[in-house]
Amino acid sequence: MSGEKYTVGIDFGTLSGRALVVRVSDGHELASAEHAYEHGVITEALPGGGGRLPSQWALQVPADYVSVLRTAVPEAIAAAGIDAGDVIGIGTDFTACTMVPVHSDGTPLCELDGFADRPHAYAKLWRHHSPQPQADRINTVAAERGETWLPRYGGLISSEWEFAKALEILDGDPEVYQAIDHFVEAADWIVWQLCGTYVRNACSAGYKGIRQDGRYPSRDFLAQVRPGFADFVDDKLDHPIGRLGDRAGALTAEAAQWTGLPQGIPVAVGNVDAHVTVAAADALEPGQLVAIMGTSTCHVMNSDVLREVPGMCGVVDGGISEGSWGYEAGQSGVGDIFGWFVDNCVPENYHVEARRRGISLHGYLTELASRQRVGQHGLVALDWHSGNRSVLVDHELSGVMIGQTLDTTCVDMYRALLEATAFGTRMIVETFVSSGVPVNELVVAGGLLKNELLMQIYADAVGLPLSVVPSTQAPALGSAIHAAAAAGAFADVAAAAKQMGRRNRNAYTPIPENARAYDRLYREYVAAYDWFGRGNDMMRRLRRIGSREAVGVLS
Amino acid sequence: MSGEKYTVGIDFGTLSGRALVVRVSDGHELASAEHAYEHGVITEALPGGGGRLPSQWALQVPADYVSVLRTAVPEAIAAAGIDAGDVIGIGTDFTACTMVPVHSDGTPLCELDGFADRPHAYAKLWRHHSPQPQADRINTVAAERGETWLPRYGGLISSEWEFAKALEILDGDPEVYQAIDHFVEAADWIVWQLCGTYVRNACSAGYKGIRQDGRYPSRDFLAQVRPGFADFVDDKLDHPIGRLGDRAGALTAEAAQWTGLPQGIPVAVGNVDAHVTVAAADALEPGQLVAIMGTSTCHVMNSDVLREVPGMCGVVDGGISEGSWGYEAGQSGVGDIFGWFVDNCVPENYHVEARRRGISLHGYLTELASRQRVGQHGLVALDWHSGNRSVLVDHELSGVMIGQTLDTTCVDMYRALLEATAFGTRMIVETFVSSGVPVNELVVAGGLLKNELLMQIYADAVGLPLSVVPSTQAPALGSAIHAAAAAGAFADVAAAAKQMGRRNRNAYTPIPENARAYDRLYREYVAAYDWFGRGNDMMRRLRRIGSREAVGVLS
Repeated sequence: MSGEKYTVGIDFGTLSGRALVVRVSDGHELASAEHAYEHGVITEALPGGGGRLPSQWALQVPADYVSVLRTAVPEAIAAAGIDAGDVIGIGTDFTACTMVPVHSDGTPLCELDGFADRPHAYAKLWRHHSPQPQADRINTVAAERGETWLPRYGGLISSEWEFAKALEILDGDPEVYQAIDHFVEAADWIVWQLCGTYVRNACSAGYKGIRQDGRYPSRDFLAQVRPGFADFVDDKLDHPIGRLGDRAGALTAEAAQWTGLPQGIPVAVGNVDAHVTVAAADALEPGQLVAIMGTSTCHVMNSDVLREVPGMCGVVDGGISEGSWGYEAGQSGVGDIFGWFVDNCVPENYHVEARRRGISLHGYLTELASRQRVGQHGLVALDWHSGNRSVLVDHELSGVMIGQTLDTTCVDMYRALLEATAFGTRMIVETFVSSGVPVNELVVAGGLLKNELLMQIYADAVGLPLSVVPSTQAPALGSAIHAAAAAGAFADVAAAAKQMGRRNRNAYTPIPENARAYDRLYREYVAAYDWFGRGNDMMRRLRRIGSREAVGVLS
Repeated sequence: MSGEKYTVGIDFGTLSGRALVVRVSDGHELASAEHAYEHGVITEALPGGGGRLPSQWALQVPADYVSVLRTAVPEAIAAAGIDAGDVIGIGTDFTACTMVPVHSDGTPLCELDGFADRPHAYAKLWRHHSPQPQADRINTVAAERGETWLPRYGGLISSEWEFAKALEILDGDPEVYQAIDHFVEAADWIVWQLCGTYVRNACSAGYKGIRQDGRYPSRDFLAQVRPGFADFVDDKLDHPIGRLGDRAGALTAEAAQWTGLPQGIPVAVGNVDAHVTVAAADALEPGQLVAIMGTSTCHVMNSDVLREVPGMCGVVDGGISEGSWGYEAGQSGVGDIFGWFVDNCVPENYHVEARRRGISLHGYLTELASRQRVGQHGLVALDWHSGNRSVLVDHELSGVMIGQTLDTTCVDMYRALLEATAFGTRMIVETFVSSGVPVNELVVAGGLLKNELLMQIYADAVGLPLSVVPSTQAPALGSAIHAAAAAGAFADVAAAAKQMGRRNRNAYTPIPENARAYDRLYREYVAAYDWFGRGNDMMRRLRRIGSREAVGVLS
């Protein structure tokens, strides 16, 4: 062997965890292994039975995360064919905001006697959306008091985040709430399991925990939200902060046994799946907007300026990398809109022809759509089938298709939806720019970059050169890069990313005549965007009209 | 035999003519026969060959109409099993505005030596839409001069009508124009063939020929449109007017031989397919709005008041029946929108299940849609896939679907389109009412009344009791009723309609809770209607953006 060293990055997703072995010298990905969570996402009933969970609940079992350490890590090492002794560090990233209520020693409450049948004692997954009333209360009080941290989150705190989830426990099961010693991001809980030390990572503490300028929302504010909530920060949340890429601790003997990795190697501070991807793309410079495009899109970008940008998800000091302001924005529906369309709106003959050709419907529709001139279909769509995260922050918005004629085909509509999501990204980019936060490059990671038509549409419609991240395991690669930094192989994450991360620059550049046509089409998108999103409450009312309560008739 | 008498009604459609034998005493339909036009609709090349026709052209061969007299009439008499000697009259209705340029003896120019290869010498079908520039010119000059007849047509003369079609001949082939002795509605030309007398029927002369208060547009106006057009009315159009249901003449020996009917029996003045249906429905009273629902919908209604109603197609004195103001309005897309949706937007599994059940996709979707509460789908659509005839009179408008989520199914969207067309009818009804023309009853004829869900939606969404016309040959029945009036079997068409026409009253009545929900949903339809139809030019711009000219790139 040539003395090569390796790090392991582990990406904890919604349904599974993936471990990736990466060569430190050049970021080469040797092998990966995936392990599905035994309990998956719990939406119906707890593992021990009991009553049916309310709608919008989404729980997980923390022990499932540990299983990933026991299985996927050794499997990836074995598949890589390396000596585990050459692994010099381990890094992780997680879905967020996913919260684990724990005892002082880190044991999840759901594992303690008497709590196995208490839903609030389990991990609440990021998409556990039931605490909307709690989020509403938090937002109302914050707006009334003019809390200065509120504009840093586009003016709205999400039901997904730490404070809403905690307040839901206080409201729903005060005994569980009293039993919580620490309310821990899963991103930090898994690091705690690896190194025995609880460190709150700066990323999720900032974006999901409302930590701004070194402070959380005040005791006074919390008391006004709910008197019993006054001590939440002091009692259950506040804890030392770890900078991204720093060493949280050393791999414990127990965790070394689980993983097969050397005891004592550095474990990086936890991180969030989207944000860690910036390192995998080597895109830590100000103005490099990284879009992780899958069922939804998350946009993350470093900047050297602090501005209040309408409708962004958050801006956090060091939230992506130390020394920069990390911005986050998002589109709540992208790939899932294309998936919905393919499942619900494509006639039989296209299915038949795609099967005959042995290609997917997505592939077939994309091939046909790629033959069209820009705007030829005469359509413009709004991509709000899952609501709008940025910049309107309204989950009650819905999709629109404008311009159908008797000649309109499913190919036309499919292409219009691809374009609508590109316009959604352009709207986010323009909002950053008009707020004084420059955007210079669009960097795409995630499953959707396989669709070359979609990528060219993004370059044309957004009007920016587009780079793509070749890794299909970009979050895990990003975690491995953070591990290398934590292990001291590089001076910092930026240096590690330069060596180990990569993107294909200018993979797509705007085609001038297409860009001109999209400039015109985008004006129509903006007009519809403003009217439906800001001009009236039609979509909200449409959701009400058909509700059982409104009509009073049972089907 | 009991001394029963019969009349024959012949409905000349776009692709075929249908003859119906009806008992005078009670309107019982004994038998019918259909004959397809040999040349159908000519859109590519003339029967004698020659160059390719321009787009939007639609011609016919008048001799094909005569073939219907020779074939369908004797067949229907034979199928009815009656003695042709018991037929006391014959009536006809036709598509409109379909125009035949003829020699002074009624011979179509296309049958004269030297004209067989001249496109302008053929009959121009109602949907020959190429004279839009001519219509634009007519409208511009009429508006500038403040012609008082213009508001009687909702402010716009159509490219389908007599003056636009004639001016197109003058512009396109002055020699043919010079050779025209009479420019004749096909509705009147067929009557001329039957009885040897040319009479212009009051209906098409009013709606399509701009005849108001006994006058046509002035020589002065025509000269301003185009100097060579000044004598058009005097030279080629003006001719005695026949009242609907009056006798135009007696069946000639030649026509008696064609049809097998007794020579000398009365032939009724010509009529238009939509307007003649009012008699079949026995709905001649003021405020009975008859909707003939097929691929498109035509609305016709008598009233005792004259008002200028925005966006209607026309109001004509005696245009439906003598002594009333006849109003016409329309929706340019109805059944064809549902057909487009079924052809283009329904996924494979619905096709499979409909086949398995042995029912049509329309039937299957309707069955599923009927299980929904009103508004449950959270959608509202605009039914402008073929543009909007009333009340916006804009063929460049297009369809919209608002409110899609990832849970939206094709059943939801299908139902939303059914509802959108009902709202389109409500908009027309409300425009009449707010203009001072009362509407009391909605009477439906045509193929779409088979869909019971659609009918209930119309009753609920429009908020009017809905009657249906049971005849599947309502226009031909209406013509047979006019024949009975012309034959003197009744004092007038109203008396004949009372005895021979029929509708099932209150076949559908509004369900109060549905009507309340639709009141709310209709407000959203109106908001979208106003914004897209009146508030901006988005749809017009969308049609431009993708045009080859706009982008300058060939695919």
